[in-house]
Amino acid sequence: MPPSPTQIVEAAPPGDWVGIPADHLLVVDLAPDAAGQARRVIIQLMNGPWSQGWIGNIRKLATAHWWDGTSVNRVQDGYVVQWGDPLGDDKARAKPLPPGLLSVPQGAYTLTAGAAPAFSGPRVADGVYAVAERFYQGWPIATGPGDEPETWPVHCYGSVGVGRDMPPDSGSGAELYAVIGNAPRQLDRNIAVVGRVISGMEWLSSLPRGKGDAGFYQKPGERTAITSIRLGSDVPGLPAWQYLSTDSASFAAYLDARANRRDPFYVRPAGGVDICNVPVPVRVTPAR
Amino acid sequence: MPPSPTQIVEAAPPGDWVGIPADHLLVVDLAPDAAGQARRVIIQLMNGPWSQGWIGNIRKLATAHWWDGTSVNRVQDGYVVQWGDPLGDDKARAKPLPPGLLSVPQGAYTLTAGAAPAFSGPRVADGVYAVAERFYQGWPIATGPGDEPETWPVHCYGSVGVGRDMPPDSGSGAELYAVIGNAPRQLDRNIAVVGRVISGMEWLSSLPRGKGDAGFYQKPGERTAITSIRLGSDVPGLPAWQYLSTDSASFAAYLDARANRRDPFYVRPAGGVDICNVPVPVRVTPAR
Repeated sequence: MPPSPTQIVEAAPPGDWVGIPADHLLVVDLAPDAAGQARRVIIQLMNGPWSQGWIGNIRKLATAHWWDGTSVNRVQDGYVVQWGDPLGDDKARAKPLPPGLLSVPQGAYTLTAGAAPAFSGPRVADGVYAVAERFYQGWPIATGPGDEPETWPVHCYGSVGVGRDMPPDSGSGAELYAVIGNAPRQLDRNIAVVGRVISGMEWLSSLPRGKGDAGFYQKPGERTAITSIRLGSDVPGLPAWQYLSTDSASFAAYLDARANRRDPFYVRPAGGVDICNVPVPVRVTPAR
Repeated sequence: MPPSPTQIVEAAPPGDWVGIPADHLLVVDLAPDAAGQARRVIIQLMNGPWSQGWIGNIRKLATAHWWDGTSVNRVQDGYVVQWGDPLGDDKARAKPLPPGLLSVPQGAYTLTAGAAPAFSGPRVADGVYAVAERFYQGWPIATGPGDEPETWPVHCYGSVGVGRDMPPDSGSGAELYAVIGNAPRQLDRNIAVVGRVISGMEWLSSLPRGKGDAGFYQKPGERTAITSIRLGSDVPGLPAWQYLSTDSASFAAYLDARANRRDPFYVRPAGGVDICNVPVPVRVTPAR
């Protein structure tokens, strides 16, 4: 019987898994829910070279404990959950940012040929949003047209990005969002993708939707409090995580199986797959 | 200033809107939530010619009040919410189905040239999942290869389909699901799309995720009770609904604006759009 994508991942040899450094994890602890249930969300920050200006800011914000006591302020169905300072748009009352944050220019939404790495993994598809879409060290990356093409990280379900105001360089990283709907690819190259949720996605995606414009909550009491946000390297006892190398034979087989489902439920394999329908497998590093 | 997609829709003349017959609506009333909030979900059933065998069954099930007292049994993050008889897989204890339901064959997942209608609206994109993707009378439809191509309805966020067991003809329509994640296009041609949620999506998408395999709830108390499911024509006082004609000039402008965002927030228009990123506008019919 042809294996399912999940079975292919479960059979991957240990050497096909890559450890995620603890300081590439962002641990978001929401206040417990009404039943007292703890709500921890773990975000994997992108490894380089994309989006590193904003990610440096995010590390500073986490180290400064800046997010502690902020909140989830916006939940727009089929689109995004957004968190940060609820008064961030009110200059007189906004929470001061820690010193040393960079102002990252619009040009940093993409990398051009010289700065972009060479790809080694399989090509996924030529989509409507890019000339080519591929994975690089575990991340979905799009490539534009031309001899020296731009490359940029792709918005998928669970992607985490940097909220901003109208000026394209106005996002510091203090205001973050996670995608809870169909991949909003129109945001690519317009906002910075800095990571993805790898655990606890349900604590964000199942929050009550906001009734205000763009899903903002209308009353302070509707917001979900953020107890703390820390780098994984600052959370004692946090398990280690791994992702399935997107250059591995196991990933190539997984990608092929996602594009051509042959496990018993399926009667008509699609023959292709959108890059956002190939979530990169992650797991807690197994005990030896 | 270039209009946003929303502004284009708001400016559409009344003649560009098409009334949805009340018996094309399925009104799902979940039990009120813990705060006593009513939770009504409205589904628009596909108009012909696709999926009509299952839709006929759904009309019979609603008219027989068959779903009353059933429940939402499965919520898998990023994938689907599913409802029906929680004991449906247990032949000895399953709720008997009303008489007269059709067994719809696998072949009905697509229509071939003779049975499929001619398209008149704009072509959206040649995606990885189909040779062409277009809208027909308000519905996203994919077209396969060849001289007499198959056509089939597309799974997008909010799409409603017919759950089934392994045999591809085993879905009656009694078990339904709604998509709450990235468009699961691998399901196209493998399960029947019968409609889409047009109101109250948040009551499904924000439900707690199930902890069992495939997101099934493990304890009966975790399920959300369904008070009733009725055809819109059987719900006194239900407002009338309209969709924006996908053959209208307004829709063509809206589609173009979704593919090339020129409203002020955007600095890099995508230059293309996936069909599932073009939700067909719907509204309550305005008072004259």
